[in-house]
Amino acid sequence: MVPEIGDSVSKARIEALTDGVFAIVMTLLVLDIVVPHLSHSEASTELVKRLLGLWPTFLGYASSFIILGFFWIGHDSQFHYIKRVNRTLLWITIFYLMFIALIPFSTSLLGVYQDQQISVIIYGANLTISLCWNYLHWWYATKDHRSVDSDLDPILITVLSRRYLVGIIIFLVAIAISFVNIHLSLVLYIGAPLYYLIPVQKHKSWTWFTKNK
Amino acid sequence: MVPEIGDSVSKARIEALTDGVFAIVMTLLVLDIVVPHLSHSEASTELVKRLLGLWPTFLGYASSFIILGFFWIGHDSQFHYIKRVNRTLLWITIFYLMFIALIPFSTSLLGVYQDQQISVIIYGANLTISLCWNYLHWWYATKDHRSVDSDLDPILITVLSRRYLVGIIIFLVAIAISFVNIHLSLVLYIGAPLYYLIPVQKHKSWTWFTKNK
Amino acid sequence: MVPEIGDSVSKARIEALTDGVFAIVMTLLVLDIVVPHLSHSEASTELVKRLLGLWPTFLGYASSFIILGFFWIGHDSQFHYIKRVNRTLLWITIFYLMFIALIPFSTSLLGVYQDQQISVIIYGANLTISLCWNYLHWWYATKDHRSVDSDLDPILITVLSRRYLVGIIIFLVAIAISFVNIHLSLVLYIGAPLYYLIPVQKHKSWTWFTKNK
Amino acid sequence: MVPEIGDSVSKARIEALTDGVFAIVMTLLVLDIVVPHLSHSEASTELVKRLLGLWPTFLGYASSFIILGFFWIGHDSQFHYIKRVNRTLLWITIFYLMFIALIPFSTSLLGVYQDQQISVIIYGANLTISLCWNYLHWWYATKDHRSVDSDLDPILITVLSRRYLVGIIIFLVAIAISFVNIHLSLVLYIGAPLYYLIPVQKHKSWTWFTKNK
Repeated sequence: MVPEIGDSVSKARIEALTDGVFAIVMTLLVLDIVVPHLSHSEASTELVKRLLGLWPTFLGYASSFIILGFFWIGHDSQFHYIKRVNRTLLWITIFYLMFIALIPFSTSLLGVYQDQQISVIIYGANLTISLCWNYLHWWYATKDHRSVDSDLDPILITVLSRRYLVGIIIFLVAIAISFVNIHLSLVLYIGAPLYYLIPVQKHKSWTWFTKNK
Repeated sequence: MVPEIGDSVSKARIEALTDGVFAIVMTLLVLDIVVPHLSHSEASTELVKRLLGLWPTFLGYASSFIILGFFWIGHDSQFHYIKRVNRTLLWITIFYLMFIALIPFSTSLLGVYQDQQISVIIYGANLTISLCWNYLHWWYATKDHRSVDSDLDPILITVLSRRYLVGIIIFLVAIAISFVNIHLSLVLYIGAPLYYLIPVQKHKSWTWFTKNK
Repeated sequence: MVPEIGDSVSKARIEALTDGVFAIVMTLLVLDIVVPHLSHSEASTELVKRLLGLWPTFLGYASSFIILGFFWIGHDSQFHYIKRVNRTLLWITIFYLMFIALIPFSTSLLGVYQDQQISVIIYGANLTISLCWNYLHWWYATKDHRSVDSDLDPILITVLSRRYLVGIIIFLVAIAISFVNIHLSLVLYIGAPLYYLIPVQKHKSWTWFTKNK
Repeated sequence: MVPEIGDSVSKARIEALTDGVFAIVMTLLVLDIVVPHLSHSEASTELVKRLLGLWPTFLGYASSFIILGFFWIGHDSQFHYIKRVNRTLLWITIFYLMFIALIPFSTSLLGVYQDQQISVIIYGANLTISLCWNYLHWWYATKDHRSVDSDLDPILITVLSRRYLVGIIIFLVAIAISFVNIHLSLVLYIGAPLYYLIPVQKHKSWTWFTKNK
């Protein structure tokens, strides 16, 4: 008999590829922080001022690093429950990584043009789309318990889904706010991940879901 | 007795090296999307236009990322069946990776000179040669069932081989077309991977092969 | 029953992310050593002199590489004893990596402005803060034997803690010295890691700790 | 009892760090191949010529990639026999990686100044020193069967040692030749790895060693 051709994919290798991309993206962010070029005589008087002037770049570095941390945890959490990976899931991961790998660009754009709405929108869109792929990944994997254990609690599935959706909504609101106030929008981007620090409350979510489903 | 010296190679480490190279190549592609340099006053009027003008670079980024996704899957599929790796197979992988690691260069070249035939040819040649090494890897590994299980179905071996060959032919045709129409050639590069989304049809391929062998 | 949601994190993947970041940071350091640009005629007479003039960059490369080696060993040692990883520990690692990934910037700054106190302070601060996160990681993991085996010897825990603290103190002293003499400060940065080459003396530390606790 | 503190190091993580560094170094080499900058009108007539003019860079890319392949295999072979890793071995690996990570610099230097003896010497010195660390690693690991199985055949140990020594000698000769003829020197660098393709002949080497020891 011909074995099933190529639909199952090694989970370990997808994790390796993902960890590799995250490690590189996180590290590439530093290339954006450029050492100022000053002549020897200028350096003694100007260097400190110039370095302090880099604060938006440092802030961008820190927020993107932390946001990437949240994304990485999101991926790790899913793979905690996902037992089998097929081609479709793999492609969702590849498209997800395609947007994750764009984050150094959007961060850099925001660092240079932090007062331009278009940079704020692009940065937000990049995060939103990444999160959408993440959500799609979870939705596809758990639909009919396709790639997770058949006895995985449906509540857990919905609770995690909701967490992605809330994140997406927060980012969309932040993008909308950029039309009114760019700085508020930026505050929301940096603040959004805090939502994920709220521990999941089991019973509350149970009620919430039985009421809404 | 002297143990056999150094001909067997750790499969796990080749996978790690390959995943590392792919993760980096995928991520390096982003370095090609350069944030435009504008003065403060220009930025408010020009930035959007300049960013929209980056579309060929973004398109190049996306297609190369997706094509790398297909290549990665191709490597993963082979290692699903390959059980033992010897030095020759490893060297084929290293030459394969040498051309995979060139993709950021060809993509960059195509992004800058998308109207020059030479860029179209080089990009196509890079993909074709990479695929040839991939095919050679599979051919060498399955010849006399050298590195695969002895009961691996010969049909599966041939079906996978054919998939590589069809890909190589499509890329060669795309290169040939560049002499007539560069844009058609580019469309074919981007469209070629779609071939690999066609699920393998078992019985049809069986007939095809018994008729042709 | 709802399984515990997302608090446990895969130890293997944190190690993979960490190893990835370290590998990239170590390798990015080389991008700082720029090949001099000389005309053909200048090259024959000037190239050697120019390459010799790169010595501070080479020295910076070597010291940062070695210091990263010590940090990597420090992480590996901890994970030798840590058995379970939760979200808090993971976040400490992410913040730790955020400062590790800054080292190419501080190294580059020091390479260009090795005679400016601010570069010496930033380089030292980068190392100190990284080490602090490292120490915090160990402290959190071993508090009430949270993430280590319950029978892990408390002395070992304290001995390792002390080693982090001594390192932090050395770096702080080096920063303080930069107000008096920059070169002495640099010598101390490069010399500090030597402390970690001293093998741990069991009985001495035992006495030391029983006396101090 | 206090457990032995921190002298044993995770073999899997050293392999991960090494594979990461090699994957990045191999991929960074491509950054050296810079897309030529030409105006739209120049491109149609000049691009092909300019790309052909990049041949020394492509040659440098290919040879460094292949040489890194040999180094990677050398590391993999050693770890095939090495069962335990201690701190000293780890430090040898870190110093080894420090020189491996310099290869993109030496390659780049050679690409720009391929007619200057100093570039030829630096490239050769980089390879020689890397190989020396590799040899030292094997020597330390096998001394008194420190890190290998106690029944590992001493002949195998010596045969592998000899292979490192011959490589070191070839590279040293190539450096010496650069004082007479730079091109001959370069040919030798590229040709040297071919030595490692010669399969180890068991009985011949046996005789060789019994005669010389």
